[in-house]
Amino acid sequence: MSTLPQLSPAELTARRDQLTARYQDFQARNLTLDMTRGKPCPEQLDLSMALLEGPGRDYLAEGNIDCRNYGGLEGIPEARRLFAAYLEVRPDEIMVGDSSSLKMMHDTILGAMVHGTAPDAPAWGKLPKVKFLCPSPGYDRHFAVCQYLGIEMIAVAMDESGPDMDRVEELAAGDEAIKGIWCVPKYSNPTGITYSDRVVERLAAMRTAAADFRIFCDNAYAVHDLTGQPDRLKNVLAACREAGNPERVLLFGSTSKITLAGAGIAMLAASRRNLDFIRGKMENQTIGPNKLNQLNHVRFLKDLDGIAAHMRKHAAILKPKFDVVLDTLKRDLGRAGIATWSNPRGGYFVNIDTLEGCARAVVSMAAQAGVKLTPAGATFPYGQDPLDRNIRIAPSYPSVDELATAMELVTICIQLAGIDKLLEG
Amino acid sequence: MSTLPQLSPAELTARRDQLTARYQDFQARNLTLDMTRGKPCPEQLDLSMALLEGPGRDYLAEGNIDCRNYGGLEGIPEARRLFAAYLEVRPDEIMVGDSSSLKMMHDTILGAMVHGTAPDAPAWGKLPKVKFLCPSPGYDRHFAVCQYLGIEMIAVAMDESGPDMDRVEELAAGDEAIKGIWCVPKYSNPTGITYSDRVVERLAAMRTAAADFRIFCDNAYAVHDLTGQPDRLKNVLAACREAGNPERVLLFGSTSKITLAGAGIAMLAASRRNLDFIRGKMENQTIGPNKLNQLNHVRFLKDLDGIAAHMRKHAAILKPKFDVVLDTLKRDLGRAGIATWSNPRGGYFVNIDTLEGCARAVVSMAAQAGVKLTPAGATFPYGQDPLDRNIRIAPSYPSVDELATAMELVTICIQLAGIDKLLEG
Repeated sequence: MSTLPQLSPAELTARRDQLTARYQDFQARNLTLDMTRGKPCPEQLDLSMALLEGPGRDYLAEGNIDCRNYGGLEGIPEARRLFAAYLEVRPDEIMVGDSSSLKMMHDTILGAMVHGTAPDAPAWGKLPKVKFLCPSPGYDRHFAVCQYLGIEMIAVAMDESGPDMDRVEELAAGDEAIKGIWCVPKYSNPTGITYSDRVVERLAAMRTAAADFRIFCDNAYAVHDLTGQPDRLKNVLAACREAGNPERVLLFGSTSKITLAGAGIAMLAASRRNLDFIRGKMENQTIGPNKLNQLNHVRFLKDLDGIAAHMRKHAAILKPKFDVVLDTLKRDLGRAGIATWSNPRGGYFVNIDTLEGCARAVVSMAAQAGVKLTPAGATFPYGQDPLDRNIRIAPSYPSVDELATAMELVTICIQLAGIDKLLEG
Repeated sequence: MSTLPQLSPAELTARRDQLTARYQDFQARNLTLDMTRGKPCPEQLDLSMALLEGPGRDYLAEGNIDCRNYGGLEGIPEARRLFAAYLEVRPDEIMVGDSSSLKMMHDTILGAMVHGTAPDAPAWGKLPKVKFLCPSPGYDRHFAVCQYLGIEMIAVAMDESGPDMDRVEELAAGDEAIKGIWCVPKYSNPTGITYSDRVVERLAAMRTAAADFRIFCDNAYAVHDLTGQPDRLKNVLAACREAGNPERVLLFGSTSKITLAGAGIAMLAASRRNLDFIRGKMENQTIGPNKLNQLNHVRFLKDLDGIAAHMRKHAAILKPKFDVVLDTLKRDLGRAGIATWSNPRGGYFVNIDTLEGCARAVVSMAAQAGVKLTPAGATFPYGQDPLDRNIRIAPSYPSVDELATAMELVTICIQLAGIDKLLEG
């Protein structure tokens, strides 16, 4: 069987007619499916129902801390110990907060805008220009934070082992206005890859024109494995320390996709020197996080083994969903020659690259048949995919049956847009 | 019996010797009492133990919202309805968030620094100077937010009916750089007074040189009555609307001193136009608040009657504490002629004014005898009490017995410092 690019215009037109008929059948079904976001499904949330019973009458944390009262800016000791182990740092290298790690990232960058990243470093907001490197495709909400704060974004390509490090090194060394880089180092959103040891080492050791350069490392999927052969990420904080740049990385994590997406625990890990500086700013902002939720989480998750066992239950729910997405892609597009896609071993997304100039058309067609996908371009800075080819599939929320239906539609749309493109060319 | 200022130097010296002996007795007792902050005592937190049982298996909010999952930036409907009633606004005029109202205030001002207060208003951070009016004594953490963000603070005196409005009006009308005023309108921290209707009306109607002037109205003690004759605060948002300045006020509240100080619910009320603008900024910062805690709170507090009944239990715990503070002040200083103090009908503080130039000495002496008070000056911008006479007493946390001991010591310190001052003069 030929790939689509090998077909003649007449054959393509005939294929388009068949696909159009199938597309119209889908339109007639009045589907309403939402795959825009990496949102846990109810069955995943059911895994953490014990948390909804609350901490109960035993509200004291270690050190006799009354979790009902004010205080404890860095989190309760047992939560810091558990999540330090989770992020592979020391307990004094982590602050445990409220539920939103995105808010922590935003607040940390905003803190840098107002007061810099260290006692002797400039307030970024006072500089004529601040730029961030944005490995792309990446997480749209990271990019939204930059755009909101007026930080110029420079897209850098992603490959199988992480960001294009030749480009990252060249840019970071050459421009003092480049103050940071966004990284989702494990099961990256959306491409699903994990940074190689070499990429981590190069990020840790590279020369940066800005002395106050920071890696904003969102380790959102640290334990979010789908297979028995999980990816292994080199310890980024340790790598930075070993490279003589202990202050370079700020590491974020959350249990939003471990326990409860709306009521989990977020955390920030960094060198103690960084944390001391951040703490000094936080003291002006809040009296402390919700310690009861931290206590509740520690009692529920217990330890790293407890987290691992819990994540296997997530995988059991998610793996069939990823499988149906990947099986449908393979079945319908495997020999079409017009798309490639990721085969992630973890995380929340399947990443599809169509022919250039097709992504917007695909997302629009799918929406008109009732299937909402992440807006085309959302995974790039300023919402602009320069090649208009990247589509992010979020399989977690819909059921397996819904995914089978939705993905059949998506592959039809990809073929239709691809054929249009081939006929144009 | 004569007041101290009426005594001769010899009489004062004799009195000082007696008081010094009593002070030394206190020093020998190795007290360790902390009255620095308005922190609820364990018995108050015990009133909300039902919250520690969590929302249980019924995690759906109105409109079938799964409170375990992402979303709901403005809070769940039933929480918005309850706390709208609490702050006397409409449900569409409130956003209900996480636990910290201080964080909400900080974030709102920071949002104004970065993006202004309205689509057509300037980013405050881009202006050469931003100033806030700070009725003083006031809440130290409000002032810390300003100092952290580089906002110049202008102290304005407080009297029995609120800030000195002649001065407020003069300043606000005369200086475009003045962008806001801090207000704790009911049972004000620390003076305990409630703004009169006339003060509210003048704040709402006054001419401001800055079109984007905002009242940061922290209604922290809206229902925190100690007596059966609670103060009544005129509705500030309604007053602003009636005066033709509907966008002028941002109203904050929290249940930190209703339910759990470290795990309550914070809220922001304002005109829908203001909320729309703030929401547009928040969307770049977080996916939403902890909705489970909101659901839990609504089920626990139920309605305004539920809140009122709950607050009567707080009053039953707090009233004897305030009484022992006030009784000791009256007994030991009532005829001394060297101090005045508040008799609050609600809130969390008793406010003492000593002779000028004595507050630092009193706080220092009390600390050396094991009783920690709020640092002298903390209730003024930049920590500077120009007359060095204001002392904030926070009676909530210690027991009645501890308070009796601590206040006896405090009155000894006030007399000693006062006598020193009289002998100097």
